[in-house]
Amino acid sequence: MKKTIGIIGLGLIGGSMAKAIKSRTEHRVVGFDRSVDVVNRALSDKSIDLAGDDDSLSDIDILLVALYPKQTVTFIKERSGFIKKGCVVCDLCGVKRYVCDALGAFGKERGFSFVGGHPMAGREFSGYEYALSTLFDGASMILTPTEGTTRTAFDELSAFFLSLGFSRVVETTPENHDRMIAFTSQLAHVVSNAYIKSPEATLHSGYSANSYKDLTRVARLNEEMWAELFLCNQEPLLDEIDTIIRNLGQYREAIAQNDGDRLRALLKTGSDLKKAIDENLD
Amino acid sequence: MKKTIGIIGLGLIGGSMAKAIKSRTEHRVVGFDRSVDVVNRALSDKSIDLAGDDDSLSDIDILLVALYPKQTVTFIKERSGFIKKGCVVCDLCGVKRYVCDALGAFGKERGFSFVGGHPMAGREFSGYEYALSTLFDGASMILTPTEGTTRTAFDELSAFFLSLGFSRVVETTPENHDRMIAFTSQLAHVVSNAYIKSPEATLHSGYSANSYKDLTRVARLNEEMWAELFLCNQEPLLDEIDTIIRNLGQYREAIAQNDGDRLRALLKTGSDLKKAIDENLD
Repeated sequence: MKKTIGIIGLGLIGGSMAKAIKSRTEHRVVGFDRSVDVVNRALSDKSIDLAGDDDSLSDIDILLVALYPKQTVTFIKERSGFIKKGCVVCDLCGVKRYVCDALGAFGKERGFSFVGGHPMAGREFSGYEYALSTLFDGASMILTPTEGTTRTAFDELSAFFLSLGFSRVVETTPENHDRMIAFTSQLAHVVSNAYIKSPEATLHSGYSANSYKDLTRVARLNEEMWAELFLCNQEPLLDEIDTIIRNLGQYREAIAQNDGDRLRALLKTGSDLKKAIDENLD
Repeated sequence: MKKTIGIIGLGLIGGSMAKAIKSRTEHRVVGFDRSVDVVNRALSDKSIDLAGDDDSLSDIDILLVALYPKQTVTFIKERSGFIKKGCVVCDLCGVKRYVCDALGAFGKERGFSFVGGHPMAGREFSGYEYALSTLFDGASMILTPTEGTTRTAFDELSAFFLSLGFSRVVETTPENHDRMIAFTSQLAHVVSNAYIKSPEATLHSGYSANSYKDLTRVARLNEEMWAELFLCNQEPLLDEIDTIIRNLGQYREAIAQNDGDRLRALLKTGSDLKKAIDENLD
């Protein structure tokens, strides 16, 4: 069935959603962005059918919010009066407890279904100019229902995302999402950003093994976005940082004490764990 | 000029050297391995021309030793009586001070030229069955001359490696090599192996962003080899581990104190550094 999809924020994620929808479905897309240039570019690309305004919010069946966490909450709270009763609202930011706590019960009260969402895809670049219709191909879409999510809304949203190229929808709680994402994504950015700060980093021309390249790829990041995501997920991320610091200390001790048996055991535990995970997951 | 090249140890690195030499040059290759099966396989592959023994060492012009650091030193010291005067001996292990200290002056005394070598290439797998004639294509070859290295020997070796597909030879000191490798390779393996030890690691099906995959790729490793390499390079590696623990602590503190300005500044410093390095190096 042809629906009207609203997309708030036409950056890398929102722009890619627009392109994926227009290239794979019959839905109508209404696009919103604070930059008039970006909206015009999306119109001329035919990635969106219409430039949105407050009034057009009342036509929207599925509203995707692709903003930073705080903007997401502010936008929805300020515009809730324009949102159609029964609309399915799904944010796309990288933390879920913060937005679901703020918008789950609120949506229920105002007559729309709020679902937390996080597409497991991205690039090292941000902005509409990097958006791709294929960005989500084969990726997981995480959805975290709230007290304001009806089962119908959830099922509709799930089918919608699968039609865009995602290979699966994973349903979980905001808390579980935030713990997992602290490990798989946030910690990776912290460690990578810390890794590059060695005094040797600027001197290693000729020594760039692939292991260095892998460890530092995500050191290059958008500090505004990541700082906000980290501060919206303090506890789980602090747990992960503490865990890796503690674990690094064990290798440090074994090396300092020249304890080959202990060092081999530490390395074997990690290596076996990685093998088992690669065989059982994804 | 056609030479006789000896290769001690036909694992991933030694086997790849044999294949690269036979596929790109006219040199004769004499192969040594403690496994008779591996030697026979290399003979039937035509990766080597002859299975080596102590006597055949006396024919060899360039002797490549592709063993772990301690075996490298033991092998050369025990067989030094068989090595031809003027032979150029180059090891291929991942630490240089340990082997150069043990074999530089020793080689000079016994009449051969010892050069430390480290090809900047590898795979997550070990053993002859993974050896590739193209493993070194476009890679750097690091060479660390010792007091036993004549300039003629160095130039001969440098031209030899460039003929195998390496894109450049980097000449440096064993100390500088070991500091750089502690950062670009050893620390990457320690951090990756520590990263995978989070309690969340086995639970993250569906959340595998590329950042997680990059950070943990080298967690899977040969613990015998890496433990030996780490213990042959204690000081530089401990410096790197201490540096990253100290840096991780700074992000930890900023997050715990909910200090957005500090966190953004920490992230921006790392991101800017990565950008500058990517633009200036490699």
